[in-house]
Amino acid sequence: MKYPGGKIIENTAKIINTSYKNRGSNLENDINISNKYYIDHKIAFIYKKPTPIKINKVDYPTKQNKIGKIVITEAYFESPSTTDYNGIYKGKYIDFEAKETNNKTSFPLENIHKHQVDHLKNITSCGGIGFVIVRFHQLRITYLLLAEDLLSFIESEKRSSIPLTYFEKKAYSIEEKYLPRLDYLKIIDQLLEVA
Amino acid sequence: MKYPGGKIIENTAKIINTSYKNRGSNLENDINISNKYYIDHKIAFIYKKPTPIKINKVDYPTKQNKIGKIVITEAYFESPSTTDYNGIYKGKYIDFEAKETNNKTSFPLENIHKHQVDHLKNITSCGGIGFVIVRFHQLRITYLLLAEDLLSFIESEKRSSIPLTYFEKKAYSIEEKYLPRLDYLKIIDQLLEVA
Repeated sequence: MKYPGGKIIENTAKIINTSYKNRGSNLENDINISNKYYIDHKIAFIYKKPTPIKINKVDYPTKQNKIGKIVITEAYFESPSTTDYNGIYKGKYIDFEAKETNNKTSFPLENIHKHQVDHLKNITSCGGIGFVIVRFHQLRITYLLLAEDLLSFIESEKRSSIPLTYFEKKAYSIEEKYLPRLDYLKIIDQLLEVA
Repeated sequence: MKYPGGKIIENTAKIINTSYKNRGSNLENDINISNKYYIDHKIAFIYKKPTPIKINKVDYPTKQNKIGKIVITEAYFESPSTTDYNGIYKGKYIDFEAKETNNKTSFPLENIHKHQVDHLKNITSCGGIGFVIVRFHQLRITYLLLAEDLLSFIESEKRSSIPLTYFEKKAYSIEEKYLPRLDYLKIIDQLLEVA
């Protein structure tokens, strides 16, 4: 789907799309249904945070507004101050951001905001497990890259994108299967065993 | 502030109010500025989740819409599926709901939704620290009641409100001071020391 104006609009289209019962089959949807599987089986309790919205105008129920509930009539998308997902697994605090790219050779860092990187750094220094899930759409590979490795790349390299080879070397590819669709906690299990 | 229609509207008024730079001095505001203090001092990373909103209609930037960004023109408040706050402190997953009451003798349980109670139960069983912060507005006392004690009351008693005496017996009163305004992590410190 394409709309005039580029990135923000595509992003919003996705937001609107997923609020309409998660149609489509994107990364966000895969993660949401995996999280639902984890929650239903009481394995982990990880949720997507709602998109922050700045409300400017509302209509309260009156004789004119007969819907009987408040209608927001003017509001704007705000950029999130943290990552999209957080929760708990095996007593550990889990926090991550999920991104897709159509790029075949690298992941452009402009996809992740500086405050999100800072947030992942804070989480890690506080003892939480922070990471990014990056899907290379064209390659049909989804990686889990730990915050430590993301940060170490950003702090040591001056490049504006992370090459695929860095993912191949440092990240963990996430198996896609029937249930849960994207079993990213299996990677966390392996990491916890080693720790 | 009073609007026709009762609870939902009061709740929304608060949401709108806090989105306008946290005017007023309610419990939510006290918690938000305490969390900001914790974040600024890298003590804990606990955030309020945005209010979930169902978007029905948007205006994309066109020749008519000259604002240059997407305007949400019809949307509705949705009820949150989890609690309002979560994050990490000393490596521990923290999760809580905050509520105020004008009642002087008890806290009406209708203030907390069943799915929020279930969520706190899940969190606790997974090794997280779950609780509710309840302010008795008229008494000028703010309590932290652990999820375990909330659950044990709900599961053993058939009452529709928790008497103040239960808070006096089981909950921890939170000191109000200059910085941080509501130092609820001090209670968590005491609990972690004992554990």
